[in-house]
Amino acid sequence: MTPTDHLYPVILAGGVGSRLWPRSRKTAPKQFLDLTGNQRSMLQEAFDRMTPLVPPEHIFVITNREYVDAVRDQLPEMPPQNIVGEPAARGSAAAIGLGAIHLLRSDPQAVMAVLTADHLIQKPEILRQTLAAGSELAQAGELITLGIEPAYPETGYGYIEMGETLGAYQGMTARRVRRFREKPDLATAEAFLAAGNFVWNSGMFIWRADVIMAQFARHMPQLHTALQRLLPALGKKDEKAAFEQHWMPLEGNVTIDYGIMEKAERVAVFPVDMGWHDIGSWAALLEVLPKDANGNAVQARHLDYDSNNILAFSKNRLIATIGLQDMIVVDTDDVLLVMPADRAQDVKKIIRSLKENGLDHYLE
Amino acid sequence: MTPTDHLYPVILAGGVGSRLWPRSRKTAPKQFLDLTGNQRSMLQEAFDRMTPLVPPEHIFVITNREYVDAVRDQLPEMPPQNIVGEPAARGSAAAIGLGAIHLLRSDPQAVMAVLTADHLIQKPEILRQTLAAGSELAQAGELITLGIEPAYPETGYGYIEMGETLGAYQGMTARRVRRFREKPDLATAEAFLAAGNFVWNSGMFIWRADVIMAQFARHMPQLHTALQRLLPALGKKDEKAAFEQHWMPLEGNVTIDYGIMEKAERVAVFPVDMGWHDIGSWAALLEVLPKDANGNAVQARHLDYDSNNILAFSKNRLIATIGLQDMIVVDTDDVLLVMPADRAQDVKKIIRSLKENGLDHYLE
Repeated sequence: MTPTDHLYPVILAGGVGSRLWPRSRKTAPKQFLDLTGNQRSMLQEAFDRMTPLVPPEHIFVITNREYVDAVRDQLPEMPPQNIVGEPAARGSAAAIGLGAIHLLRSDPQAVMAVLTADHLIQKPEILRQTLAAGSELAQAGELITLGIEPAYPETGYGYIEMGETLGAYQGMTARRVRRFREKPDLATAEAFLAAGNFVWNSGMFIWRADVIMAQFARHMPQLHTALQRLLPALGKKDEKAAFEQHWMPLEGNVTIDYGIMEKAERVAVFPVDMGWHDIGSWAALLEVLPKDANGNAVQARHLDYDSNNILAFSKNRLIATIGLQDMIVVDTDDVLLVMPADRAQDVKKIIRSLKENGLDHYLE
Repeated sequence: MTPTDHLYPVILAGGVGSRLWPRSRKTAPKQFLDLTGNQRSMLQEAFDRMTPLVPPEHIFVITNREYVDAVRDQLPEMPPQNIVGEPAARGSAAAIGLGAIHLLRSDPQAVMAVLTADHLIQKPEILRQTLAAGSELAQAGELITLGIEPAYPETGYGYIEMGETLGAYQGMTARRVRRFREKPDLATAEAFLAAGNFVWNSGMFIWRADVIMAQFARHMPQLHTALQRLLPALGKKDEKAAFEQHWMPLEGNVTIDYGIMEKAERVAVFPVDMGWHDIGSWAALLEVLPKDANGNAVQARHLDYDSNNILAFSKNRLIATIGLQDMIVVDTDDVLLVMPADRAQDVKKIIRSLKENGLDHYLE
């Protein structure tokens, strides 16, 4: 038995990616888009990263029910029954629980790797190596997180404070998690980096499916009860009614960090450098996209005079730019967005304004 | 007889307005566009300014032959024979000469007011008053220019140095022109303003048609000969052949300033404040357009957070802007242009680049 015989990557792909509006829309959120211009969507890339490690039938996707068809279209190699559609989002803890019961249905020894579909990972072999190492450590009942070696004092991510070394697994060092720390202010983030024993919380985890279920039983009993009742209905004709009865009433949209990780005792972390980049905003995308000779990230027919570090996206139109610096220009069929890269977080304000002005159709 | 009985406004409307690309195109140059958002094109506004002063049959338009239909569509009130199409541009002196022979054909006493279709004139009543005054002074054989009281030391315009006062006509003061001065550098422009006797050259003129013809005879004999030969062919079946024979060989694209005004002796100027604005570039347009509550000039469905002094134009798309300052965003069906207002002159560089890259269709 190799350590990955019972490994099941479960890709969470239910987000809406609203800060990547106007490309990311309710009907086609960012995980279904080819944002990096390499002809594969972020979801497809998340899938591609796993196929060298496990067979396609071990890979699962948890998404919103309305995106199930889109996932099936994008991942024809995956068994359709591995695409799990939530009838409504109930937080990452519930989504992970839903994945866990799907795995346990067919493999009581299942080891679950919770993965994201909205990050760029430039060194996928390191991720695979970490998952193999995590599969081994998970056998001991540990809840394992993947921590990212911080490159700078980012204030937009959660941090993990690492304690003593637990040992080496498949050549990767695991450490005890001392504490999860919420998004810090800049001074705190700088102190974290100076301390040297802090990593970014990647939102990726490895654990035995039965172990995370036991954690739900202890820390999130309402969710655990719901999952227990859903399990026998999966794939049966009363599945829909069971979701209506047990899933829909779940409250709070609880994250796995808040619901379990911050409370659990045996939590370990693999600090890894896998070229991980959060593609959470246009500015983040600009940072990771390859640049042309003028230092611009261009996915458009583009004619420029004297611009630098701009992102220019359009499917249909010629974008002409003159003398722009650090600027985002995103052109879609019905919306054009222009902003400095350092204002990329304010896309949320535009979205709020669209809703307030009854212009929701620009979000769809 | 009122002084305007023999007055004929001749509107020059043959330009291509390339610095207002991508809205201004070869097939629809700026004079045919409603750039200011008031539902009338610049040509129509030039026409509207004259109808309180003279009957429509006194108004002429000189344009390129390929725009004759567009002029007819935009100015249905004007007799079609008053729309004169040049088979090819041969400079403003030739265009004015062509206008002059059209007037002389029906009215030997014609007074010609040469007007432009690419300026905004916020006080049209002052223009009309000046034309009436000019009609009177023109009877004495003067070549009259309209000078604009300079608001600041612009380096993009020619200047007129004024000499002694000639007298008052219809309440307007005329002065002798001492010298035409080409576009100055900033120090020179500042000296002009300090001197107090300099005005901007507006490119608008008043003179008797027979007087300007006599000037052509003296200073531009090749043009004069061509005009003399074209005159008997106007409106006849051999008109096209006559243009082919006499117009097409004209050389040099000579401006009226260089060809006549700088050489003529009896040149007068009315210094006027008529709210004149050259709409030569996007930056110039941004300056004169009315602003919304946030200080932005918007001709689009527009949603903004925290921008100021931007121009946002789109017919079809929503433009969303965040944190932009002094920026131009022009969206058309096939091209999107984004640049800081102070780079508006560099549109010419994009146009050159389009030509060099075989992308001329974006200019059409």
